Amino acid sequence: MDRKRVVVVGAGFGGLEVAKSLRREDVDVIVVDKRNHHLFQPLLYQVATAGLSATDIAAPIRNVLRHCDNCTVLLADASSIDTKNKKLMFSSLSGGEASAGDAIAYDYLVLATGVTNRYFGHDDWQKYAPGLKSLEEALDIRRRVLVAYENAERIEDPKERQAELTFVVVGGGATGVELAGALTEIARKTMTRNFRHFDPKSARVVLLEGGKRLLAAFAPELSERVREDLSALGVEIRTETFADCIDSRGVTLKGGERIESRTVVWAAGVGGQPLSKTLGVKLDKMGRVPIEKNLTVAELEGESVFVIGDASALEQDGEMLPGVAQVAIQMGAHVAENITHAIAGEALKDFRYHDKGSMATIGRSRAIAQIGSVQLTGFIAWCTWLFVHVMALVGFRNRVAVLLEWAYAYLTYQRSARIILSRD
Amino acid sequence: MDRKRVVVVGAGFGGLEVAKSLRREDVDVIVVDKRNHHLFQPLLYQVATAGLSATDIAAPIRNVLRHCDNCTVLLADASSIDTKNKKLMFSSLSGGEASAGDAIAYDYLVLATGVTNRYFGHDDWQKYAPGLKSLEEALDIRRRVLVAYENAERIEDPKERQAELTFVVVGGGATGVELAGALTEIARKTMTRNFRHFDPKSARVVLLEGGKRLLAAFAPELSERVREDLSALGVEIRTETFADCIDSRGVTLKGGERIESRTVVWAAGVGGQPLSKTLGVKLDKMGRVPIEKNLTVAELEGESVFVIGDASALEQDGEMLPGVAQVAIQMGAHVAENITHAIAGEALKDFRYHDKGSMATIGRSRAIAQIGSVQLTGFIAWCTWLFVHVMALVGFRNRVAVLLEWAYAYLTYQRSARIILSRD
Repeated sequence: MDRKRVVVVGAGFGGLEVAKSLRREDVDVIVVDKRNHHLFQPLLYQVATAGLSATDIAAPIRNVLRHCDNCTVLLADASSIDTKNKKLMFSSLSGGEASAGDAIAYDYLVLATGVTNRYFGHDDWQKYAPGLKSLEEALDIRRRVLVAYENAERIEDPKERQAELTFVVVGGGATGVELAGALTEIARKTMTRNFRHFDPKSARVVLLEGGKRLLAAFAPELSERVREDLSALGVEIRTETFADCIDSRGVTLKGGERIESRTVVWAAGVGGQPLSKTLGVKLDKMGRVPIEKNLTVAELEGESVFVIGDASALEQDGEMLPGVAQVAIQMGAHVAENITHAIAGEALKDFRYHDKGSMATIGRSRAIAQIGSVQLTGFIAWCTWLFVHVMALVGFRNRVAVLLEWAYAYLTYQRSARIILSRD
Repeated sequence: MDRKRVVVVGAGFGGLEVAKSLRREDVDVIVVDKRNHHLFQPLLYQVATAGLSATDIAAPIRNVLRHCDNCTVLLADASSIDTKNKKLMFSSLSGGEASAGDAIAYDYLVLATGVTNRYFGHDDWQKYAPGLKSLEEALDIRRRVLVAYENAERIEDPKERQAELTFVVVGGGATGVELAGALTEIARKTMTRNFRHFDPKSARVVLLEGGKRLLAAFAPELSERVREDLSALGVEIRTETFADCIDSRGVTLKGGERIESRTVVWAAGVGGQPLSKTLGVKLDKMGRVPIEKNLTVAELEGESVFVIGDASALEQDGEMLPGVAQVAIQMGAHVAENITHAIAGEALKDFRYHDKGSMATIGRSRAIAQIGSVQLTGFIAWCTWLFVHVMALVGFRNRVAVLLEWAYAYLTYQRSARIILSRD
């Protein structure tokens, strides 16, 4: 019997887990990604707010998988899937390994592509309000934030200056809350004594959330605690507030109110990657692929296509599984098992997500965590958050480097990555 | 009497020293730079070779000078100098504080602009062989090197693959030697087991030097030692060899020999910044401003313009002072003193450079150092190099971070910044 080939698209938490779990199996694994690095997305907001450097939260995929001898890493941009002939097609990518029209065959395909920013039909907002999904976007946001302070030092008109010093975060989920907290800390602490013509403390951070409360995925008491903590830091929280229009000079809210702001960050919505559409099955409203409990796609025959992580839509106990790393990792391990079952001619097993808890940080020494029925807040939650995130980082070096950055930041209020790189 | 205003152009080693030395004097200091960060240039080659991240060797200028209450930092691109009316003019800069046509008046001007890459009349080579003067250039070189390995994994033609795996460094000064050593280490150690279709050890690193020996500024015995050490690492050293033509596919040497290479790095020549030309005085062949022993420009009246560091040309004991950080720092402190003399109506004093020694590193555990009549080589020189560079880094954080990166790299042969960021 020929060795089967498993093609994994995406080297995020889910994709890497598939490859690692298949390490000792008698299969060939090809991991396809259009970037050369795995990205630790939960800490991406810290790159955007100059707390960590880009390299602290990224690791070269080839290096992560160097001991998986049955695994090949392919730097390439997957463009479409031919499920009938079991082929993955590529478009060309500068510095990539595939040209437009190239294709590879698979026996099993695992889609672990994650999500991209979604602007609810307002794609034109993207250039005014970048989202936070890649290192490049994080560095773009960092540049915008730092340049706004530089502009404020120059501008003499008080209204114009205040617009430069107004930062709007759209979306009150974990990313939005963490961004708003960090932006406030920059204004209150990091920039102290750095400017001669204005007081950095005069900066405003506004957090817009369409729903009734922040962090809707958490218990209401924790949402309330987050609201108190963020308010104490100085964040202006606006719930049940929607953006009606975002342009280069600010945000107009539904109802007509205008917030003049030169720096708007999008943390409000994510949606599936374009590649999912080429499966030819019906996607859900957010562009995710509805999957079976065994993680395959029902409409496709032969149980050869699996979709995992943020790219998938799966219900458990009446609720959609959340788009978090733990779901992707557990699905990745499960798919690897199911593939070995399939090769052995055995029936696929159903997946069940075991919630290890979720958490969000609000700023210096404050966080919330929900682990089963246990709720943590304040300093203890923050220590838990810190421990979990450092341990989850890929690679010993990143772990130590990030711990060091945080220790330094904690002691000095400084941010180590306050560097504006020009866009040439 | 009005407070005098000192305008310093450039926040490199020299410029920062001027501002710091004038901290307690009764003057207003304005430091002008077109970037928001001071750059520790001696370690820039490590960013280009993925050993350090960009933020490790850069520090925000505003933060470095935050305790200098008489000092304002101006993020702006100085375009020309009107020595007659004592004015510095600006061109506009995205995110900068000055618009085209803006100007500020000075009582004393200190030019500390450093140098830029010089291609000896072949400016078209720049796009094929980037130099190493800014973070952006270093990140560009890093991208090219990492992408070359990615391309090699894809290409099947042996000749084409070898061209991707051939790295040419033009120039055998300290930067060239250090780059060549680091590039060899990447090939021999860092990339081990990362690729499936070729052996990274098959990469070639070629170092071209026009003169008779490497590191001409050092004693001949040290040059010889460097040649031995680099050869042992696997670098192909070609002295008395000039590039005749550099294009997108390689280098043609004078004499006709062709080296097929997709990654060429320029470390062969530097020259003055364009701003110096607007002084209206005769520059030397390298575009530097010839200065008096008191660091003023002879042709300009009134002793109001000083030039220091790499931007200046000054002879001492029959030899030109070298373009190193120590010269800039000592000149910076001296200019600050001379400015206080000038304000007090006293005569300016002559500058004298005290050579504290110079050094270069060749790779893991190997370096050379020349301190007065003492010559060090091998491990001891390397430890000295390490100690001096870490201590000289601006900011406690950078010091610890860099030490940590190096300890990690020493133990694991890994490089922490192996991240390809896409352009745009």
